[in-house]
Amino acid sequence: MEAMDLLKNEKVLPVPPAALLALARAALAEDVGRGDVTSLVTVPPEARARARFVAREGLVVSGLGAALAVFHEASAGEARFSALVEEGERVEAGATLAAVEGGARDVLAAERVALNLVMRLSGVATLTSRYVEAVRGTGARITDTRKTTPGLRLLEKTAVRAGGGTNHRSGLDDGILIKDNHLALAGGVAEAVRRAREGAPHLLKVEVEVESLGELGEALGAGADVVLLDNMTPDEVRTCVEFVRKESPGTVVEVSGGVNLSTVRALAEAGADLISVGALTHSAHSADVSLEVESC
Amino acid sequence: MEAMDLLKNEKVLPVPPAALLALARAALAEDVGRGDVTSLVTVPPEARARARFVAREGLVVSGLGAALAVFHEASAGEARFSALVEEGERVEAGATLAAVEGGARDVLAAERVALNLVMRLSGVATLTSRYVEAVRGTGARITDTRKTTPGLRLLEKTAVRAGGGTNHRSGLDDGILIKDNHLALAGGVAEAVRRAREGAPHLLKVEVEVESLGELGEALGAGADVVLLDNMTPDEVRTCVEFVRKESPGTVVEVSGGVNLSTVRALAEAGADLISVGALTHSAHSADVSLEVESC
Amino acid sequence: MEAMDLLKNEKVLPVPPAALLALARAALAEDVGRGDVTSLVTVPPEARARARFVAREGLVVSGLGAALAVFHEASAGEARFSALVEEGERVEAGATLAAVEGGARDVLAAERVALNLVMRLSGVATLTSRYVEAVRGTGARITDTRKTTPGLRLLEKTAVRAGGGTNHRSGLDDGILIKDNHLALAGGVAEAVRRAREGAPHLLKVEVEVESLGELGEALGAGADVVLLDNMTPDEVRTCVEFVRKESPGTVVEVSGGVNLSTVRALAEAGADLISVGALTHSAHSADVSLEVESC
Amino acid sequence: MEAMDLLKNEKVLPVPPAALLALARAALAEDVGRGDVTSLVTVPPEARARARFVAREGLVVSGLGAALAVFHEASAGEARFSALVEEGERVEAGATLAAVEGGARDVLAAERVALNLVMRLSGVATLTSRYVEAVRGTGARITDTRKTTPGLRLLEKTAVRAGGGTNHRSGLDDGILIKDNHLALAGGVAEAVRRAREGAPHLLKVEVEVESLGELGEALGAGADVVLLDNMTPDEVRTCVEFVRKESPGTVVEVSGGVNLSTVRALAEAGADLISVGALTHSAHSADVSLEVESC
Amino acid sequence: MEAMDLLKNEKVLPVPPAALLALARAALAEDVGRGDVTSLVTVPPEARARARFVAREGLVVSGLGAALAVFHEASAGEARFSALVEEGERVEAGATLAAVEGGARDVLAAERVALNLVMRLSGVATLTSRYVEAVRGTGARITDTRKTTPGLRLLEKTAVRAGGGTNHRSGLDDGILIKDNHLALAGGVAEAVRRAREGAPHLLKVEVEVESLGELGEALGAGADVVLLDNMTPDEVRTCVEFVRKESPGTVVEVSGGVNLSTVRALAEAGADLISVGALTHSAHSADVSLEVESC
Amino acid sequence: MEAMDLLKNEKVLPVPPAALLALARAALAEDVGRGDVTSLVTVPPEARARARFVAREGLVVSGLGAALAVFHEASAGEARFSALVEEGERVEAGATLAAVEGGARDVLAAERVALNLVMRLSGVATLTSRYVEAVRGTGARITDTRKTTPGLRLLEKTAVRAGGGTNHRSGLDDGILIKDNHLALAGGVAEAVRRAREGAPHLLKVEVEVESLGELGEALGAGADVVLLDNMTPDEVRTCVEFVRKESPGTVVEVSGGVNLSTVRALAEAGADLISVGALTHSAHSADVSLEVESC
Repeated sequence: MEAMDLLKNEKVLPVPPAALLALARAALAEDVGRGDVTSLVTVPPEARARARFVAREGLVVSGLGAALAVFHEASAGEARFSALVEEGERVEAGATLAAVEGGARDVLAAERVALNLVMRLSGVATLTSRYVEAVRGTGARITDTRKTTPGLRLLEKTAVRAGGGTNHRSGLDDGILIKDNHLALAGGVAEAVRRAREGAPHLLKVEVEVESLGELGEALGAGADVVLLDNMTPDEVRTCVEFVRKESPGTVVEVSGGVNLSTVRALAEAGADLISVGALTHSAHSADVSLEVESC
Repeated sequence: MEAMDLLKNEKVLPVPPAALLALARAALAEDVGRGDVTSLVTVPPEARARARFVAREGLVVSGLGAALAVFHEASAGEARFSALVEEGERVEAGATLAAVEGGARDVLAAERVALNLVMRLSGVATLTSRYVEAVRGTGARITDTRKTTPGLRLLEKTAVRAGGGTNHRSGLDDGILIKDNHLALAGGVAEAVRRAREGAPHLLKVEVEVESLGELGEALGAGADVVLLDNMTPDEVRTCVEFVRKESPGTVVEVSGGVNLSTVRALAEAGADLISVGALTHSAHSADVSLEVESC
Repeated sequence: MEAMDLLKNEKVLPVPPAALLALARAALAEDVGRGDVTSLVTVPPEARARARFVAREGLVVSGLGAALAVFHEASAGEARFSALVEEGERVEAGATLAAVEGGARDVLAAERVALNLVMRLSGVATLTSRYVEAVRGTGARITDTRKTTPGLRLLEKTAVRAGGGTNHRSGLDDGILIKDNHLALAGGVAEAVRRAREGAPHLLKVEVEVESLGELGEALGAGADVVLLDNMTPDEVRTCVEFVRKESPGTVVEVSGGVNLSTVRALAEAGADLISVGALTHSAHSADVSLEVESC
Repeated sequence: MEAMDLLKNEKVLPVPPAALLALARAALAEDVGRGDVTSLVTVPPEARARARFVAREGLVVSGLGAALAVFHEASAGEARFSALVEEGERVEAGATLAAVEGGARDVLAAERVALNLVMRLSGVATLTSRYVEAVRGTGARITDTRKTTPGLRLLEKTAVRAGGGTNHRSGLDDGILIKDNHLALAGGVAEAVRRAREGAPHLLKVEVEVESLGELGEALGAGADVVLLDNMTPDEVRTCVEFVRKESPGTVVEVSGGVNLSTVRALAEAGADLISVGALTHSAHSADVSLEVESC
Repeated sequence: MEAMDLLKNEKVLPVPPAALLALARAALAEDVGRGDVTSLVTVPPEARARARFVAREGLVVSGLGAALAVFHEASAGEARFSALVEEGERVEAGATLAAVEGGARDVLAAERVALNLVMRLSGVATLTSRYVEAVRGTGARITDTRKTTPGLRLLEKTAVRAGGGTNHRSGLDDGILIKDNHLALAGGVAEAVRRAREGAPHLLKVEVEVESLGELGEALGAGADVVLLDNMTPDEVRTCVEFVRKESPGTVVEVSGGVNLSTVRALAEAGADLISVGALTHSAHSADVSLEVESC
Repeated sequence: MEAMDLLKNEKVLPVPPAALLALARAALAEDVGRGDVTSLVTVPPEARARARFVAREGLVVSGLGAALAVFHEASAGEARFSALVEEGERVEAGATLAAVEGGARDVLAAERVALNLVMRLSGVATLTSRYVEAVRGTGARITDTRKTTPGLRLLEKTAVRAGGGTNHRSGLDDGILIKDNHLALAGGVAEAVRRAREGAPHLLKVEVEVESLGELGEALGAGADVVLLDNMTPDEVRTCVEFVRKESPGTVVEVSGGVNLSTVRALAEAGADLISVGALTHSAHSADVSLEVESC
């Protein structure tokens, strides 16, 4: 797979390449600082190295494009990086994910940053895939939230897709989601939805959080495109979904609130279209990946 | 506590305030994008809000300085933020960590970014405190690694200290740590340490990873300031520590490699001075914190 | 009106204040360069000046928030700026729009940049208001396009709203608009809409350009939220609108393509919901505004 | 014509290439944001496209270098762009100005930004050429002002030259122009010119605005290099020019103030050396150019 | 003297305040890096300090505005800085130049950067004043060159003026100076000057380097505003000056080339209008200034 | 020597290439500004030039990597630069240091910036080599200080090594150096060292300034890794060194304070391990280097 392909992988909504390179540059600046003293005093400048990313546990791969960008920046474009698996592919422990060859100092300077990204993003993809697996067959989709790591949102959202999930809005500007705090300030569900429909650009949908059947009715009446049922039991969700299907069949139903792997299937079976899970990004473990370096 | 104090808290190596504000600005840009459409269409511009950060589980607090910076940036300095607990303080579920008051739109725009930071950093501090507790009384200190989130290193290292841990080097430029990859390229332990002592600025210590008693002897003979025992059993650690105490009493012994809460105490009792734990930063769960907003 | 209010005016989707200040800084850097040599050699440093923005023709006001930001940046926060009219207000020739007082060198350094912004943005608002006037009573709304000045998009979109128009999407990422070029590459209207509905985040609507009744039928069948009729005559528009109202009453109809002040009303009367007009931003004349400076 | 040639065209004072690429990057960031959702969900990643810039009206070309920079940035250097006409060339409706070939997603992401620049800049060049034509044979030259679009000054000044005009100063730091506001603060024409000649670097000329024959005499007496006659009738201009030719033959005479296509020739015939026209940049219509895309 | 006055001192062409603060920020980032470890571990956060800048040798002062900016940035605006002498003032050893009071950590973090700037800039001002003194009474002025420290040009040019010198152009864009390298490529003096006069904006003068009476004649004939006599003896300079005064009395004569304190007066007495001296900025010693800190 | 090698020269702690290119870009922006008007109006765009850096006095070379970066940036990567001598090599007057070939306009635009860097850095290297020579045979090493030019620290530190010196810490974050100001605020030598050892990351050494034998004893007792003897006579240094050798043989002794070429050898012979010399960077003359350009 070519570098360009990695940066523009078709399976996910890709991060613009320029943004990826900028992130790599910033992350290297943070880690390398004024220079990698250890390599400079111990590794000859002409030494070259070959390295392989090896999975040390089963995982769903994400972040190889980011790793490529890191090696690219650290070597001023000199290092050669090849992905051996695809974004979103599930691999077993021991699998080689990618290989890189370049100046030994460059490879060592990039190592930690590249691993930090691949491990975190594969961790997100792997955890997402477990949620996706848990609801298989129900028609519900797993989606992410804005509970992402500051600075890594687009990459983490890409990882969610790599794990089979879908993306909620990317920020506060590409979707309208009226939550309890807005409702208090806006004068209730009906008025808030009305204002949103009137004031928003015509290509943005309007979603509103509701906490009762009464609010749900208000929301549907005011023309909400999506309703969000927060912190409801599966039975409550089922009741709401039935109400929506009858009153406003085109409206999408999202469920959220403390969802975990034990509870997600029941919510899915209760009829939710979307289940949003903050833990996908805020509490994923890093996947265990190592970089095995050899001189060449 | 004043804003300035928050940004310069004495209990931790603080992040320079300018860096904190820059991070807040970038994180807000990522989340807010072209503007918070929902608030703009539903919340009147003159509305004001008061909000409290509430712990929803027991935790060790970190990141309130970052939260302050976020509200400061989001409100162009208008919002008032007060921390009610100290960085590094342990609180119970239900405790109020901080309060903020400002324009409702500003508070809502900052909410998610501030929470993302406080939850993640308190998660790191809380996990660190569990490791610190696990080795209490042994003389070993828990330290972090470079397995941090790209972009958040200084904050995560602050959180480690809030949890009672100590910081390893901040990057590749403020400490020399010769690892297996360098050794292969540098011609062995003795030669690598010799080169490092000769080439490095005189205020940086030299640490080297060793895998056997033989390499340990080489490292001490060449004058390493710190030795890193990677992936050893407690018994192996004990043997190495005894060797160091006898041959080179001033040398510091660090232990690393897949340390977890079950194994850490045995390593500490084996005599390690420092135990470095990647999981502190790469696999901490976000602590559960909510922002409770009310209009005012 | 306070500075804060100016930067967060309720009548328009405001530009985030930080973005406005950054724009002001960049525009001043472009104009002032290494320093305003003329003022430095002719104006005493202690001189102070008072200045008024005066409309020299009838116009709809936009851009006073931008002007405030320019004076703020040029004077390091020292100059006092007061808006005397509201964003979106229509004024006659001779009206005073705003006043500013500060160091004479600062006022003179900011003058041209502030005027360039107010004149351009008021020009956009004024032209928009003429289109809005032209369709009054028809139910059609005037909307903008992405044919904006590079670097000024959010401000120009704000000006469109000040003139009574509405905003189309802000960029390529907050709305899906499938145009002829995509259709050729995607295999036709039905397939393109299907892919879009499947692949897009659930808060983005899907709009598709159609050129015939056949394509319109395909679009409605595939579930397009909005259809764009490009370069059609009023009669063709009327036929399409009738078809949409009958087949898919919730679908919004946008019309575009070389619309001008002579043709816009006929298109509105033909039933369009939205008429998008590139000229609002790409061909507006600057409104005639002067800054009258006096020493004080 | 090669890319390099385009960015360093000899007919105009070129924008430094790094500045051009930075502008392209910023303009793309503004338009593309987090990614071109429409292309990503409808256009296969491997699709390629060929596109032609076609004039839809007669125009004088400017901005192809900027367009090249946009495609270069949007495609990470992969797309091939060829200009088929020269900067400053006059073409008829239907002429192909340039061609580009690259990944379909890249071409579509760059389309609007590139067109916005070419249309605006060709609009400036075309309008300038009409003024230049209007004064042909008189010896007067048409020059621009600082009434440019914030962020686009150098490009718009390049466009003015493409249209046959000349450039006034680029900002407040590369020329001294003492206007009425300075005069009030500096104690009159003679004193202001004296201060300027004494305080300014020796490679900058001194220009001063005068409103009467008396002031003109003062200016010449004090050694002004250039005099600016603001808002005078052709007869007044003629009187002043005759005075200058007699008293100080080396002094340049600039005329300004509400000049339009009806009045410009009379001012030129009255003997002005330079006529500055704000409308060249603040009120030019975008030229009508389309990008015709086909898959390949 | 107030902060604002310091940043806008009337005796010199000031650096725009925003540029000064940006420089301070960058210089602090370079020196402070991830934090001042020493102060953080030894100085209590609440400690306050008072410090005085003391001249340890006689010197001409420059750079106090820069020092102010450094303390301002390092303390987030909290420290109070007062200049006790004026930019350009000559002081004796032992004089106090300025005082600052603030948080002890902030004062210590800013100390080195502020001193580095004041010492270097006062060194430039002091050396300049020696050259100015050396030519006193001759009518010649001492001017600087572009041989400045990358990143500090505007400040060093300010220091030259503080020392009584004048500034040559600020960069390649605010003055035309045709040197030998251009002449070789442009086809000789007459042709180069002709091209320059035709192609340049009308507020920029044209200077040309000449190496012989023949070239000088060509330059005057072609209308050069300034001629540069490079590496000539005082006798050669005298001959050229006499030629200029006779043939083209308005033309300015600049002399350059390895000028030092021993040779400068003879060149001045030979009639040069301007003598440019690279050493002013490329070889000035730092003036000896200390910061005396006490706790308070 | 290849470009890559130049940027990663093994004899010195290199500046990260990205930092070098960023510095080149900023320095060019400062000098070139809106464009090199002189070349643009006198040099044909297609002209090419070849140029050689020629030493005009004996010197120790430093800064060719920086020069390469400048030509690279100025020519958008087109110019070819070859170093003919090595970083740190001593050359005689007349030696050619490097050659470059490229577009004539690019070569001329880069000339001054490249020379400014090579001259300053070679000046630092040359001066350093004189100090190193002065202490040859004594065992003492010459080291730099933080008295560097703001913005050029890493390059100047590289130049010090090119001249045979060693580097002190790079900033306030990669070494602990407790000076008199800290001592006053921290309660004395013993307490300050104790706090530093407890609070600092374990890879940073602790250095403390002492002014008497008593303080020296305190410092050694508290475990300082390095002691700094400030402003002592050779005899005082000798007494202190003997004390250290006896009491704490592993402790390093640094001497500083007004060291010059007359006094440095006596201090070295008194037994100092390191002698830090501020003049290396704050008062070096620029080395005399010219760029000889010819068209080709």
